[in-house]
Amino acid sequence: MQIARVIGTVVSTQRDPSTQGWSLLLVEHLDVQNQPTGKFTVAVDALGVGPGEVVMFTSGSAARQTKITAARPCDAVIMAVVDTWEVGGEVAYVKGESEA
Amino acid sequence: MQIARVIGTVVSTQRDPSTQGWSLLLVEHLDVQNQPTGKFTVAVDALGVGPGEVVMFTSGSAARQTKITAARPCDAVIMAVVDTWEVGGEVAYVKGESEA
Amino acid sequence: MQIARVIGTVVSTQRDPSTQGWSLLLVEHLDVQNQPTGKFTVAVDALGVGPGEVVMFTSGSAARQTKITAARPCDAVIMAVVDTWEVGGEVAYVKGESEA
Amino acid sequence: MQIARVIGTVVSTQRDPSTQGWSLLLVEHLDVQNQPTGKFTVAVDALGVGPGEVVMFTSGSAARQTKITAARPCDAVIMAVVDTWEVGGEVAYVKGESEA
Amino acid sequence: MQIARVIGTVVSTQRDPSTQGWSLLLVEHLDVQNQPTGKFTVAVDALGVGPGEVVMFTSGSAARQTKITAARPCDAVIMAVVDTWEVGGEVAYVKGESEA
Repeated sequence: MQIARVIGTVVSTQRDPSTQGWSLLLVEHLDVQNQPTGKFTVAVDALGVGPGEVVMFTSGSAARQTKITAARPCDAVIMAVVDTWEVGGEVAYVKGESEA
Repeated sequence: MQIARVIGTVVSTQRDPSTQGWSLLLVEHLDVQNQPTGKFTVAVDALGVGPGEVVMFTSGSAARQTKITAARPCDAVIMAVVDTWEVGGEVAYVKGESEA
Repeated sequence: MQIARVIGTVVSTQRDPSTQGWSLLLVEHLDVQNQPTGKFTVAVDALGVGPGEVVMFTSGSAARQTKITAARPCDAVIMAVVDTWEVGGEVAYVKGESEA
Repeated sequence: MQIARVIGTVVSTQRDPSTQGWSLLLVEHLDVQNQPTGKFTVAVDALGVGPGEVVMFTSGSAARQTKITAARPCDAVIMAVVDTWEVGGEVAYVKGESEA
Repeated sequence: MQIARVIGTVVSTQRDPSTQGWSLLLVEHLDVQNQPTGKFTVAVDALGVGPGEVVMFTSGSAARQTKITAARPCDAVIMAVVDTWEVGGEVAYVKGESEA
């Protein structure tokens, strides 16, 4: 899984019927020090998260292992909101403190 | 999923029988600011999109989760046309405004 | 899928029994302007292609969706010979014209 | 599989129900000389490992081939603790000697 | 598939029960001219290969399509020993001639 920040939303009306009901979010991958890496992914939101939230998403066939994505053409799904993470014993991120 | 622009088409007559009926499009990946990244993919068109359109494609085994690609050797499929996306509250792309 | 040129062959006698019958080709990935990228892959030949030909190959679990590769340890398979492709309305490659 | 060092932990309370019970660890990929590469992954811990330990993790659909991850949205799982590895006949890492 | 040289071994006693019996080898990816690329992978040995041998390995779900890896958390398996390969009609590698 990768840690990423929700930076935007994608709107699409003409799409494969199997994707109806999906909320599509743009997430930017973060490094271990909570800095953006410049890489981004469009992920299906399985939780109902908001803009600026730090989340984890899972990729590949694993992304179809949630109710909303099962047997659908999804290769990335947000499956957790991150509360905090630490690196080498030091806190790198705490929800609510470092969001823009 | 990744956002990309349809930049061309690929024609092939000698191909695996399982791929008959596919329309093969060349798509160039875009970054969050709607700039080309120099990366490209040949994707199956599940929607009937046109040249210059901005689309989303899904990769890996997820690309076989549409009617046209099920149980076929497809690793990338266009499954949505993008109407608009926004980053940090600002619109980065609107269909019909920024296409060449 | 990716576009690539067949640049060589790989010979192996000691190999997993499930791979018997495979023809193994070395392919170099091409960019949209028909230039080599320096990346290469060993792909199973599902079509009977020759040296120098420009082909498409599919990767990942999709590479097991042909008769010759089904349920075998194949992660890349050549499933089409490219006749031509165009980018932005201009022809980038025509079979028989740009091959060395 | 990749070799990596456990460098931290990730805490998440709001997450997909299918992920309950997972311990989520931050691992940094190592090169063959036991140096960090700057790449990291969040992996599910299938073994009960501790901070600083050098482990192997498996990615993709293989990451769902353990009891704790089967049929769940996991794309990376720690499935071994590394005791030692050698490169070209020379020991590159021995557990307990090179950990910080 | 990728071509690689066996450069070492990995020893692990504490590991997921499903991985028992695996021989774990460190392989370094080679380019088409038989030069190391600096990229490496830990692969399961399905053949019984030795140090310095040039092999092919398969990645992703394809790595579970051998007897020793079926339904186990394996994302890379050595499934062939390379005898020779040629690029553009010239021999790039012959087993027994270019090994250190």
